[in-house]
Amino acid sequence: MAATSPATELAAQVGAAMFAADRASRETMGMELVNCTPGCATMRMQVREQHLNGLRICHGGFIFTLADSTFAFACNSHNKVAVAAGASIEFLKPGQLGDVLTCVGQEQSLSGRHGIYDVKVSNQHGEVVAMFRGKSAQIAGTLV
Amino acid sequence: MAATSPATELAAQVGAAMFAADRASRETMGMELVNCTPGCATMRMQVREQHLNGLRICHGGFIFTLADSTFAFACNSHNKVAVAAGASIEFLKPGQLGDVLTCVGQEQSLSGRHGIYDVKVSNQHGEVVAMFRGKSAQIAGTLV
Amino acid sequence: MAATSPATELAAQVGAAMFAADRASRETMGMELVNCTPGCATMRMQVREQHLNGLRICHGGFIFTLADSTFAFACNSHNKVAVAAGASIEFLKPGQLGDVLTCVGQEQSLSGRHGIYDVKVSNQHGEVVAMFRGKSAQIAGTLV
Amino acid sequence: MAATSPATELAAQVGAAMFAADRASRETMGMELVNCTPGCATMRMQVREQHLNGLRICHGGFIFTLADSTFAFACNSHNKVAVAAGASIEFLKPGQLGDVLTCVGQEQSLSGRHGIYDVKVSNQHGEVVAMFRGKSAQIAGTLV
Repeated sequence: MAATSPATELAAQVGAAMFAADRASRETMGMELVNCTPGCATMRMQVREQHLNGLRICHGGFIFTLADSTFAFACNSHNKVAVAAGASIEFLKPGQLGDVLTCVGQEQSLSGRHGIYDVKVSNQHGEVVAMFRGKSAQIAGTLV
Repeated sequence: MAATSPATELAAQVGAAMFAADRASRETMGMELVNCTPGCATMRMQVREQHLNGLRICHGGFIFTLADSTFAFACNSHNKVAVAAGASIEFLKPGQLGDVLTCVGQEQSLSGRHGIYDVKVSNQHGEVVAMFRGKSAQIAGTLV
Repeated sequence: MAATSPATELAAQVGAAMFAADRASRETMGMELVNCTPGCATMRMQVREQHLNGLRICHGGFIFTLADSTFAFACNSHNKVAVAAGASIEFLKPGQLGDVLTCVGQEQSLSGRHGIYDVKVSNQHGEVVAMFRGKSAQIAGTLV
Repeated sequence: MAATSPATELAAQVGAAMFAADRASRETMGMELVNCTPGCATMRMQVREQHLNGLRICHGGFIFTLADSTFAFACNSHNKVAVAAGASIEFLKPGQLGDVLTCVGQEQSLSGRHGIYDVKVSNQHGEVVAMFRGKSAQIAGTLV
């Protein structure tokens, strides 16, 4: 049995609790939370009909949303409530119907209440679909 | 009866055609296209249960999506297909359940194939919820 | 004689004091402070030999620096010390040797300690050279 | 004697040629080019009196300029002329008089003519001073 640190266990608990309550990510978007560790998270989403815009590709807003959710899990993983102050995204490749998008977010900096997180969205061929950078601000409260 | 220029009529036609085909914005998100004029667009979306994250506020990704759609209508309004190359957003206020978010996008620059668009999302009290800046790239093709 | 409000007079005093102390903007870069009013500032800089990079155009970093200084005057104009938390810039046209760049910054939002400022850099032909958006955070202290 | 690939030798040559011609980075700012390898570059700059703003800290524009130069060497290292289309920066710590800032830039993506580069500025204590992300566009021409 693998040993896990208290911080790792806490992050997993926070992730599970947040995901259960996050109707937007879970139901409306159909995301899956792959894991949530201290400062990091991985999510996955398959591109379906409901995600397509008028050009029959995944709406860029939903690729952002996948990255933004991953960022949210990563920046809340320390069990201090954090919200997004802002973010930027670069779109590199479209998401096609049926694509499975995997999204990995990692803490780059956490200083006082403010954090920076880099998030990368890739498709099932390992191609980078988008790069996202989010800035978080911790507010009062805990998640679990 | 108000006179309208050919460019204005074209933008309205492009907007209507794009919106009819944009399942993500129309059905999944529940947006409304208020108008589409040359270089500009206005959209509206009410925050509903399906938009809420685990903090019971509108998922920031959906506020981005509203802004990104508005940007898409504005940058395609000249009837040359344009895609988003990247965007940034600053979140100023949360969107609460029941809020009616109005989103106005305006072309700031269009030089060659590349454009910059500023988009502002406000709530029914006139408070600014988010500021978005999108960068577009025209590709081959027309919309109508 | 034009009537000026106390806020306008204060902003002008803050601008003059900051500019006198700002060796980087004044001496190293050769900027001029055109005006500083509540939430706004205008600066000017001529592109000289010392600003040129290896392509013989103005170093993009110095165009950013012009915008960043203008942003600093605008966000400090209320006489509460504010620092830059971050910024983004889009480069639209190069600055050529001899160009006179005028830079106008305007407050878009100021909520609590956090502000957003849009800054536009134009050349002597009225062409937009760069668009900048800065995010400020007020810290303790006053300027004058 | 270490073997070096042709790409590595070319990048070193490009770096040397660009740096020799870049008066802004070399003379006006006082930067040093530490190395230039394919897709990457490292530069260094000591904060001196000429870099200080009215708060007696390094002008944020000059921290950006250091990152922007590093980005320029990284994105031109393939010997295809590339220019900056845009960039964003987050300021995490001020640069103090005497600090030695080391700046490392790395290619994250290069697809067609468009690249994304992440650049980190650290001080002599290993603390991150700023994080920068630049977007490049290749144009016609070679550097050496």
